[in-house]
Amino acid sequence: MTVELVRSSAHDSDVLFAARVSTQGEKTLDAAAAGTEASDRDRGLINYLMRDRHGSPFEHNSMTFYVQAPIFVFREFMRHRIASYNEESGRYRQLQPVFYVPGPERRLVQVGKPGAYDFVEGTPEQTALAVAESKAAAEFAYAAYQRMLTAGIAREVARGVLPVSTYSSMYVTMNARSLMNFLSLRTKHPDSHFPSFPQREIELVAEQLESIWAELMPLTHAAFQAGGRVAP
Amino acid sequence: MTVELVRSSAHDSDVLFAARVSTQGEKTLDAAAAGTEASDRDRGLINYLMRDRHGSPFEHNSMTFYVQAPIFVFREFMRHRIASYNEESGRYRQLQPVFYVPGPERRLVQVGKPGAYDFVEGTPEQTALAVAESKAAAEFAYAAYQRMLTAGIAREVARGVLPVSTYSSMYVTMNARSLMNFLSLRTKHPDSHFPSFPQREIELVAEQLESIWAELMPLTHAAFQAGGRVAP
Amino acid sequence: MTVELVRSSAHDSDVLFAARVSTQGEKTLDAAAAGTEASDRDRGLINYLMRDRHGSPFEHNSMTFYVQAPIFVFREFMRHRIASYNEESGRYRQLQPVFYVPGPERRLVQVGKPGAYDFVEGTPEQTALAVAESKAAAEFAYAAYQRMLTAGIAREVARGVLPVSTYSSMYVTMNARSLMNFLSLRTKHPDSHFPSFPQREIELVAEQLESIWAELMPLTHAAFQAGGRVAP
Amino acid sequence: MTVELVRSSAHDSDVLFAARVSTQGEKTLDAAAAGTEASDRDRGLINYLMRDRHGSPFEHNSMTFYVQAPIFVFREFMRHRIASYNEESGRYRQLQPVFYVPGPERRLVQVGKPGAYDFVEGTPEQTALAVAESKAAAEFAYAAYQRMLTAGIAREVARGVLPVSTYSSMYVTMNARSLMNFLSLRTKHPDSHFPSFPQREIELVAEQLESIWAELMPLTHAAFQAGGRVAP
Repeated sequence: MTVELVRSSAHDSDVLFAARVSTQGEKTLDAAAAGTEASDRDRGLINYLMRDRHGSPFEHNSMTFYVQAPIFVFREFMRHRIASYNEESGRYRQLQPVFYVPGPERRLVQVGKPGAYDFVEGTPEQTALAVAESKAAAEFAYAAYQRMLTAGIAREVARGVLPVSTYSSMYVTMNARSLMNFLSLRTKHPDSHFPSFPQREIELVAEQLESIWAELMPLTHAAFQAGGRVAP
Repeated sequence: MTVELVRSSAHDSDVLFAARVSTQGEKTLDAAAAGTEASDRDRGLINYLMRDRHGSPFEHNSMTFYVQAPIFVFREFMRHRIASYNEESGRYRQLQPVFYVPGPERRLVQVGKPGAYDFVEGTPEQTALAVAESKAAAEFAYAAYQRMLTAGIAREVARGVLPVSTYSSMYVTMNARSLMNFLSLRTKHPDSHFPSFPQREIELVAEQLESIWAELMPLTHAAFQAGGRVAP
Repeated sequence: MTVELVRSSAHDSDVLFAARVSTQGEKTLDAAAAGTEASDRDRGLINYLMRDRHGSPFEHNSMTFYVQAPIFVFREFMRHRIASYNEESGRYRQLQPVFYVPGPERRLVQVGKPGAYDFVEGTPEQTALAVAESKAAAEFAYAAYQRMLTAGIAREVARGVLPVSTYSSMYVTMNARSLMNFLSLRTKHPDSHFPSFPQREIELVAEQLESIWAELMPLTHAAFQAGGRVAP
Repeated sequence: MTVELVRSSAHDSDVLFAARVSTQGEKTLDAAAAGTEASDRDRGLINYLMRDRHGSPFEHNSMTFYVQAPIFVFREFMRHRIASYNEESGRYRQLQPVFYVPGPERRLVQVGKPGAYDFVEGTPEQTALAVAESKAAAEFAYAAYQRMLTAGIAREVARGVLPVSTYSSMYVTMNARSLMNFLSLRTKHPDSHFPSFPQREIELVAEQLESIWAELMPLTHAAFQAGGRVAP
């Protein structure tokens, strides 16, 4: 999984100026504001907005990420409707033979009931099987894909054989409010107020998004964390 | 591809009452209204709303469909953010061995440039190859999937090998305005004002959605068609 | 404030069938289902979805309301972007002289700090003043409006003088998930998990919406209430 | 009407990199890209995306504006649900006595039928009346507002008397795709493919938004204009 920040206009001060228009009705941002040290009053305002679920001040910012992940991760990602997506297209280009294969750290065995699953380590045999089967199926599929392309069959038809473990790439643009909603559902964090049971692979993407965002908007991130990771 | 209407509250009269609140400011719908014959004035109003892109009156209705289609179709479908989706989950259940294989009527060969592709019939050899490869890859993948499940590996890991041709099922709920937007992009219709180049498989789903909708809201559908299939 | 249900397709069973496609992958709704007694299993599933914030199953339903309320209430209402609106237009028709005047039960005096305001009863003098000033300003404004219309000035210009207390009317269509979000922010309920400080006039509208919805989807409403009135 | 750009991350190159991920599947943006001269190929790609309604590449950018305008303009503006808003609040602060009064260039008289209105100049008497009535009503209302505040009545109650011509201020954040949709509906432009009949006051805001955007994204703006001002 790769996550890179491509573009951003996202600062804690964006939250502050948007919130202050409610109470002051004037433009409170000056040119220097983005770079200045946050005051305790700033911190307090962001914490208050988060706690009382004043969500809209967290929307006046934007982050564009470039993400590489398997199709099954993108399938979950794109269920989040408050974001902008552009993905590599199997209709317009030949997809590359890069596939997700569970690594040795992937907990392979599921225990528990729906809504309360947990995952535990597989035996060495299970791990070896998962790796071998994943690789073999990907290779078989890609060979079939190539034979069809060579025979002149359209890419959009031939791609049907490719597994959902095939890596794809996309640009995604979100604001901090959308991202907090995404993180609250796609990370399983001890400090979360609400339970969530994300698949580990999308959580790996979410963790990278979060760490980039936390650098851009440290006060907002701290308030999100302190408030139980509930999106406002 | 299967499309069934599950629930709906969608009548041409819903468009009329919503539009008339603008000009009359009162509730114009009475109990009998849904069943009455449309007048020429009703027809005229719907045509006018469509032509002048008054979109909101087309939103006060709802249709829920049950759709069965391959994952690669759902991937395109779910890029439409103005709809509600619930899909069968490969995390919660074992997926069934049902796969899309291009039929004899599928035009397999792509000619032309990006943005102006056309598809022509394959030779008998190409058709035979597409069918054989699609089937073989699906069978290989499903056998790998089953071996992993049998060995106790979690469903969410094992499913990675399954091809994007695997059939899935979902409920989708949309209103007429969203559906018109979907149809304008996912059908290639001679009367369309704007060009569109949908993949044939999603167009097959779109055509079924359209024919169900046209029965529920015939005046609205006629106005959409007459207006060049432009969503208001 | 008037709230009437105009159209709906909204049953607890709509939540159930949408949720069950995830785990069963098939259409579980039959014709009779909407009318059958809910089982304990049904209740349990709805509670589980609410608690674990599986929000999408609550979207496959639709309710259209006709609402009459002052413009300042509609201004707050329309900040909720996940709904469909059609409102009476001051460009297309002459607005009627109906205005909101605070009634005797309206607590007129605000005490406390931002984010923790409370309202207490006004003195008889304050109440009399609020009523008298509200009426006088409305009458003055409407007379000016009429003089401009009589003089041939366009409605869209003349309406500028009308106060935000002027009553308007609209149709609004929402699904249960959107409505829960609206209710969590626009009612101040002792059982709410999160604080909210709605203006009393929009809360009066929200309470009527809630009571209509609770009759249509009693299990969903009970789960919302039991879960601290947090929208999933 | 005041419109100022507060923040932006919006360049033609943002459209290009997002579009190229479809066909190249890799990150094509390098650090220098935002500043480089656009090639004919870049121009051609943007025109093609606009014409064939590939809308999503126009979403990976963001513009935040500070807008001052009367409440009746904000009422129309906020019907556009694909934007982020924070507005000055009459609950949290005392509103200022600044009101919209039609200027001498405002065409005051409406001729024609619904959907095909036109506006012509008023007589000197009509103009004088519109100005006088607008001012008098605003002054009367603001005096009532102040008397209520002085008597200790809550701001949220007292504001009911203020006219919809009262100036308010807000921050609004949009991307280029949303803005194009807004402009296609809120400007009446000779080159527009579709008719639109915006109220002149919101059009004045729209024109300022457009001119700021045209400087930020000149190729995209030119393609929008050349394509009949149809949002992709």
